[in-house]
Amino acid sequence: MKNTFGQSVSVTIYGESHGQAIGIILDGLAPGIPVDENFMQSQLTLRRPSGAISTARQEPDPFQILSGVFEGKTTGTPISIMIPNSQTRSKDYSATRPLARPGHADYTAYCKYHGFEDYRGGGHFSGRITAALVAGGAIAISALKSKNILIGTHIKSCGNITDRDFDQLDQDIQALNQKVFAVLDDDKAMQMQDKIKQTAEQRDSIGGILETAVLHLPAGVGEPWFDTLESLLSHALFSIPAIKGVQFGNAFDLVNGFGSAYNDAFRIQNDKIITETNHNAGINGGISNGMPILFQCAVKPTPSIYQKQNTVNFFEKENAELEIKGRHDPAVIHRARVVVDSITALVLCDILAGRFGTDYLA
Amino acid sequence: MKNTFGQSVSVTIYGESHGQAIGIILDGLAPGIPVDENFMQSQLTLRRPSGAISTARQEPDPFQILSGVFEGKTTGTPISIMIPNSQTRSKDYSATRPLARPGHADYTAYCKYHGFEDYRGGGHFSGRITAALVAGGAIAISALKSKNILIGTHIKSCGNITDRDFDQLDQDIQALNQKVFAVLDDDKAMQMQDKIKQTAEQRDSIGGILETAVLHLPAGVGEPWFDTLESLLSHALFSIPAIKGVQFGNAFDLVNGFGSAYNDAFRIQNDKIITETNHNAGINGGISNGMPILFQCAVKPTPSIYQKQNTVNFFEKENAELEIKGRHDPAVIHRARVVVDSITALVLCDILAGRFGTDYLA
Amino acid sequence: MKNTFGQSVSVTIYGESHGQAIGIILDGLAPGIPVDENFMQSQLTLRRPSGAISTARQEPDPFQILSGVFEGKTTGTPISIMIPNSQTRSKDYSATRPLARPGHADYTAYCKYHGFEDYRGGGHFSGRITAALVAGGAIAISALKSKNILIGTHIKSCGNITDRDFDQLDQDIQALNQKVFAVLDDDKAMQMQDKIKQTAEQRDSIGGILETAVLHLPAGVGEPWFDTLESLLSHALFSIPAIKGVQFGNAFDLVNGFGSAYNDAFRIQNDKIITETNHNAGINGGISNGMPILFQCAVKPTPSIYQKQNTVNFFEKENAELEIKGRHDPAVIHRARVVVDSITALVLCDILAGRFGTDYLA
Amino acid sequence: MKNTFGQSVSVTIYGESHGQAIGIILDGLAPGIPVDENFMQSQLTLRRPSGAISTARQEPDPFQILSGVFEGKTTGTPISIMIPNSQTRSKDYSATRPLARPGHADYTAYCKYHGFEDYRGGGHFSGRITAALVAGGAIAISALKSKNILIGTHIKSCGNITDRDFDQLDQDIQALNQKVFAVLDDDKAMQMQDKIKQTAEQRDSIGGILETAVLHLPAGVGEPWFDTLESLLSHALFSIPAIKGVQFGNAFDLVNGFGSAYNDAFRIQNDKIITETNHNAGINGGISNGMPILFQCAVKPTPSIYQKQNTVNFFEKENAELEIKGRHDPAVIHRARVVVDSITALVLCDILAGRFGTDYLA
Repeated sequence: MKNTFGQSVSVTIYGESHGQAIGIILDGLAPGIPVDENFMQSQLTLRRPSGAISTARQEPDPFQILSGVFEGKTTGTPISIMIPNSQTRSKDYSATRPLARPGHADYTAYCKYHGFEDYRGGGHFSGRITAALVAGGAIAISALKSKNILIGTHIKSCGNITDRDFDQLDQDIQALNQKVFAVLDDDKAMQMQDKIKQTAEQRDSIGGILETAVLHLPAGVGEPWFDTLESLLSHALFSIPAIKGVQFGNAFDLVNGFGSAYNDAFRIQNDKIITETNHNAGINGGISNGMPILFQCAVKPTPSIYQKQNTVNFFEKENAELEIKGRHDPAVIHRARVVVDSITALVLCDILAGRFGTDYLA
Repeated sequence: MKNTFGQSVSVTIYGESHGQAIGIILDGLAPGIPVDENFMQSQLTLRRPSGAISTARQEPDPFQILSGVFEGKTTGTPISIMIPNSQTRSKDYSATRPLARPGHADYTAYCKYHGFEDYRGGGHFSGRITAALVAGGAIAISALKSKNILIGTHIKSCGNITDRDFDQLDQDIQALNQKVFAVLDDDKAMQMQDKIKQTAEQRDSIGGILETAVLHLPAGVGEPWFDTLESLLSHALFSIPAIKGVQFGNAFDLVNGFGSAYNDAFRIQNDKIITETNHNAGINGGISNGMPILFQCAVKPTPSIYQKQNTVNFFEKENAELEIKGRHDPAVIHRARVVVDSITALVLCDILAGRFGTDYLA
Repeated sequence: MKNTFGQSVSVTIYGESHGQAIGIILDGLAPGIPVDENFMQSQLTLRRPSGAISTARQEPDPFQILSGVFEGKTTGTPISIMIPNSQTRSKDYSATRPLARPGHADYTAYCKYHGFEDYRGGGHFSGRITAALVAGGAIAISALKSKNILIGTHIKSCGNITDRDFDQLDQDIQALNQKVFAVLDDDKAMQMQDKIKQTAEQRDSIGGILETAVLHLPAGVGEPWFDTLESLLSHALFSIPAIKGVQFGNAFDLVNGFGSAYNDAFRIQNDKIITETNHNAGINGGISNGMPILFQCAVKPTPSIYQKQNTVNFFEKENAELEIKGRHDPAVIHRARVVVDSITALVLCDILAGRFGTDYLA
Repeated sequence: MKNTFGQSVSVTIYGESHGQAIGIILDGLAPGIPVDENFMQSQLTLRRPSGAISTARQEPDPFQILSGVFEGKTTGTPISIMIPNSQTRSKDYSATRPLARPGHADYTAYCKYHGFEDYRGGGHFSGRITAALVAGGAIAISALKSKNILIGTHIKSCGNITDRDFDQLDQDIQALNQKVFAVLDDDKAMQMQDKIKQTAEQRDSIGGILETAVLHLPAGVGEPWFDTLESLLSHALFSIPAIKGVQFGNAFDLVNGFGSAYNDAFRIQNDKIITETNHNAGINGGISNGMPILFQCAVKPTPSIYQKQNTVNFFEKENAELEIKGRHDPAVIHRARVVVDSITALVLCDILAGRFGTDYLA
């Protein structure tokens, strides 16, 4: 299905970095959901590069809602959101057309599209397309709030600086969603930002790990096979350009241990069924158990670095050297966080509408 | 889509642990692929519990091909493979019906299916269903071999014992596919098996990490968004019951480092474009670059342990204790390996048929 | 998606006429629906050839439920129903292997499957596969009854003998669902059966038109584009082998007339919104309006006739003559009727589960 | 999937009659297809109301390609085409908000969207959305031409005036594709236009039947079940607002006859396998046999008529009368023709890319 994802609630995205516009069509959301354009704008601002630690290309991302919203509310028909491109400096790219930027999709795009791809600024592979996901995701986040389902993400680690663990989840998530640089411990936030600045000075880039929590998702959601909660979330998350790993809970750290430690004992608390620990991350057998959903995404260092790199000229099939020009981020993890929240919200809207019907999130 | 996965080549699975049969319908494979029932049986044997380190329930998994194979070859129409159940000791389970086994899906199944689920032996959530995936996957593996696309998996770690890294990939994979206990280093294999036996004696269970390589996948396969190679593989992999994490390359270890180290420089080698390192695991921008695809799966310790555990009675909504009887594995990671290979093969057949047409793998 | 249809409730079918078995996997039905095996058997009997007007191949269609039903009710997990084949006389077909039976799929199967298809008795194209749809459809019909949604079909015309129009729909449908030969007017039923017998004596075959009504479908179901009620119903109906036309209401007769006659005026009746006429067949803008859904299917004469016919040998690419042997029906319309009801029920379960959630039809 | 259709090549549409814009995202087309904006414009002109027989609302439909086209060719990534709305007279509609226009979707939209729908001018149900399909379809038509696959449609009948049958198909289709009012016989075209004018004078509307031919589709395309050629085409065709019947060949007229007449005998002609007649409309068993694909669509009279009509006020649940104002067509059949061609082309691109791979139509 390529650029469309989701069954009951689906998203379709389009656009290239240096084309006319990027956009998203969001279909299947319940009618009657309030659409808060200020919230959409503030979410877009979180994704937008800004300040010393980000690229100089800082577009305001003015979006237009072309359909699906009437008198401030969703109509139930497709919501089309367009974000026009501007400030494109296409000439930055043409000179190095056949030189594959390491870690980027230039060469694989050429293999797939045979040279017809719009190569400027990464074209359709550009992280800029995620702005469309954020615009649409903002509406999904609002829809989920109507059922008190909350999503929050922090930078778990960046450049080996590690944030504190989640503690009081409701409060932590509320706090994170007020922050531009989403780290629970403010000291660690400073250290990470310093690290990013140093990295930029070294003409290098850096990545890290994001950790996300979803609160108050009802129990009984997800499928035993193929469309497990883990499957659907990871499917969507892995389409965020820099993400190369997804784990639920601390799986990679814990699986070498014992079942007696990994199992989460069930208990009754305030007349509700909970688990004492949550190593299974709120999911048993692919289905939510009512506990928080927890997952971590590995965000690779942005591949654009201002150093001379070995590469090939794929037109000529010969070795070459490349020094990337243009405007690039030394890190994207702090911006990727709102993309993770957005895409998580979109997936959950899909799953919930499938489970409880198309009017559930109204 | 619940129990169906894939677009061009799709699989549908059914069955419960203690029902009449489990099975798979495999649709969309090219006509003319040789179907080797001996290979199917030998793959099923790899999944089957056996010997001291596995459960006492050791069924021979005799399968029947009900359709889609004619004169030893695929017809191009749906291949239905049924594996009848036998040797079921249903009474083991009924006594503890409303007690949620920690780490299992009893409680979430109850939330989703309202008590109508076949609860015996985990019902539709049973790992036994993976036998159907293995039977179908064997045909997919054969289909891929016609294009020299090879898949192999080793136990990267189990109980903190770590296998050596992949080295000569073609040889390593050939070697692994001859082994019942898929570890590259035979000493480590012994240590892991000892560890599993010790764990069983402690009435506990243990997990680990599987690492898989896919060789000779053509460049240019996968989609930039939503249906990235990572997305499709992880979607399928996360439906294997015990898998809680998927990373491409060593993502979680490496992303805190620098872009200059993570980027894979392109080079020409024997007139072919390769990368010097392969931290991106053969995938740039969601699309294969011609290098080996590498991923790791975190396999949690099997949740059935022979210890008294805290839990709840979900009919009565009250705390309870549970001591699991029946026959259970102290580890499933050595058996999960062939399931990973199988589901990987099924996903790749789907992607390749979508990209190159339905006759490609004939 | 080939042999799988439906999103929220999906069906997957498999099998060949002379293979081991045919079958259906029905996924996504709500848990807790009573499964009445007697009703399933009686529906299968309606499809089964019987008596003077049908083929001599009269199998009892004994079905086995392999999964998804527990203690007489659906579990919510995939329902696998298998119908073993028997009584196959494969040698009837091998002699004429490369001779394309006119009106059949032999030649197109060869174009698609390159000769690997199981050609015996039409293989996967055989009308026999519809038995699987009928077995699964019986459960869907039961599920719909829980919401008082009723489906009935009569033979509107056969060999230019025309049944009376629907009149009192609830009564008519109740009456039809008691009949083996589903014609409202018993005299016309006799005439049609005589016509079929005469046709058989002439070594020819005959078709006709089926008309179906769906009662009590709630208003507000269906989509404005692509997944209109008409689209989804026709998609499924056109996969019944002999169906070559689908119209809602009497569309082909009426569309040359005026809008003032075609429009259905809305009125209030017993506090309910109804339409005075129902030319739009219960559907406005792709969505149900609460009136009966009415559609007609053109069922072509069965292509197997006992006359010498011109054809080609597609192996040799040369002209040939063919005289079909074997056992064949002079008409299938009276048997197709229960297939239409079944597939209609399956589609409606899918649409309703998508609209109102997976528990709606429990 | 609501507003998205197709698997390998998919279309997503959005928009409301009186919103900001309508549009289409066309995904999965091969890279390298020339995009001829003049042809797109001329196709849009065929759909656009014009002259005495059409509504006074005559927008120029200026479209913008926002993505997916680079240097005049498709890139292989999503093609987003937007058509801004203008010339909207929204006040025409608000006065009659709760009065269900007979034959329209006002009431069913209210049932589905609970009053949140954009009701102005039919909102998302407006035939205007088909302009997006025509814009996208023009690219699909171009893609098919690269393989010499041609599509053409004539008005078979309108107001009981009947065009001549197809004769020399290649010539007829070439001729039709030059005509604004697509009737093979020019006298009949005049009579039909007169009939439409008379109907307008009577403040009424009129419908008819369109007949379409697809030439040079390769044999072996389509699926035996569910995704038969008939299924996929009818699925798409029935989402065109006014279409209420689809038949392949003259099915409804012929099925009451004999199999000996309906069967199409195969013959060798110029070393190619053809059929002597083509009652099966180029499709056997759901799969193309290499003969022309022929189908007819019943297009209902446009429901907007300038007469007082009985209806209900669905807010108050009481009887009412309605006299529609605004600008409306006495007939849409001559405009629907290019929509049928467009959607047919989109479906065929999907089927061909699925069968032969994503590069096939480049």
